[in-house]
Amino acid sequence: MYPATIHNLIECYKKLPGIGEKTAERLALSTLQLDDEILNLFSKSLLDSKKKIKRCKKCNHLSEEDLCSICKNTNRDQNIICVVEEPKNVIVFEKVGTYNGLYHVLDGLISPLDGVNPEDIKIDELIDRINKEDIEEIIIAVKPSIEGETTAMYISKLLENINVKITRIAHGIPLGVDMEYLDLLTLEMALEDRTDIS
Amino acid sequence: MYPATIHNLIECYKKLPGIGEKTAERLALSTLQLDDEILNLFSKSLLDSKKKIKRCKKCNHLSEEDLCSICKNTNRDQNIICVVEEPKNVIVFEKVGTYNGLYHVLDGLISPLDGVNPEDIKIDELIDRINKEDIEEIIIAVKPSIEGETTAMYISKLLENINVKITRIAHGIPLGVDMEYLDLLTLEMALEDRTDIS
Repeated sequence: MYPATIHNLIECYKKLPGIGEKTAERLALSTLQLDDEILNLFSKSLLDSKKKIKRCKKCNHLSEEDLCSICKNTNRDQNIICVVEEPKNVIVFEKVGTYNGLYHVLDGLISPLDGVNPEDIKIDELIDRINKEDIEEIIIAVKPSIEGETTAMYISKLLENINVKITRIAHGIPLGVDMEYLDLLTLEMALEDRTDIS
Repeated sequence: MYPATIHNLIECYKKLPGIGEKTAERLALSTLQLDDEILNLFSKSLLDSKKKIKRCKKCNHLSEEDLCSICKNTNRDQNIICVVEEPKNVIVFEKVGTYNGLYHVLDGLISPLDGVNPEDIKIDELIDRINKEDIEEIIIAVKPSIEGETTAMYISKLLENINVKITRIAHGIPLGVDMEYLDLLTLEMALEDRTDIS
């Protein structure tokens, strides 16, 4: 019912997560209003996304070169690695801006029920880095879920006999949240992770 | 913080309506997972959308040729025109599937407060068609808002002395809705548009 080009655009938008028929239709029709410049950039970036984007050989973050901009930056602390689940977690920490060490992107968390075993994520590569690079601390910064805890414990276990400090980011009460609306597990974790302020 | 290609993708997605920073980021990262085939089609369709998509010379619907597939279809009733606000309204009526006449896309509704005057939408073109083609009925199928009513009344006024039947689609209670949740204006319209079933 739509001309072929619009039909194709709708089908492409529908391949993206969370975009159904109606949203895809709305996006496709809005696409017709975009400036030529944006359309050209959009079109080119889509092609480039497959050709140019690879993973950093060291930390597994998204990169257009062998080493990502973070690993290449010699001003960063080369003795500390923040271990995260996905590339977008790197971006979040970079937005916070207070962390100046390196990263390691696992590309998933251990979840035997979903068929994700330790060898399916980049844990070997992490251990390899700790053995080869001069790492003093690794910060495990994965989400506080069963998968996150399992992954954190598995990594700690592997590093038992290696002289490296292992920490994990604090779990607790986020700012601006009413205590009464918090789930019990978060409260339990907040109690457990309490810090001495005396 | 992201490689340039991903940064560009995020910026492009953000140009689409209803897509903010976080959604754009999620879409850009998901784009990396798309098949080559889809990426190529997506990229090509974006370029084509500017080059190939134009408006039908007769009804102003979206088309890749001078005449849209509906206007070219000689099996359709050539004596009736359904007047709609936007191209996507055509698609909705086509999905319903019971209407077999022609369309006319106004590309807007009269709204003096927003600076949209009769000459800014395709009303002249509609009158022109009624004068030239053998039109027996026009169905005004615009939404029941102040702008919709104004547009419908304006068109009726222009056609006062022309021998063509003017109808508008019924306004009333939609199926599956509890009467008590309906707004009063809809109920008022439903009362006014009541039909004789005796």
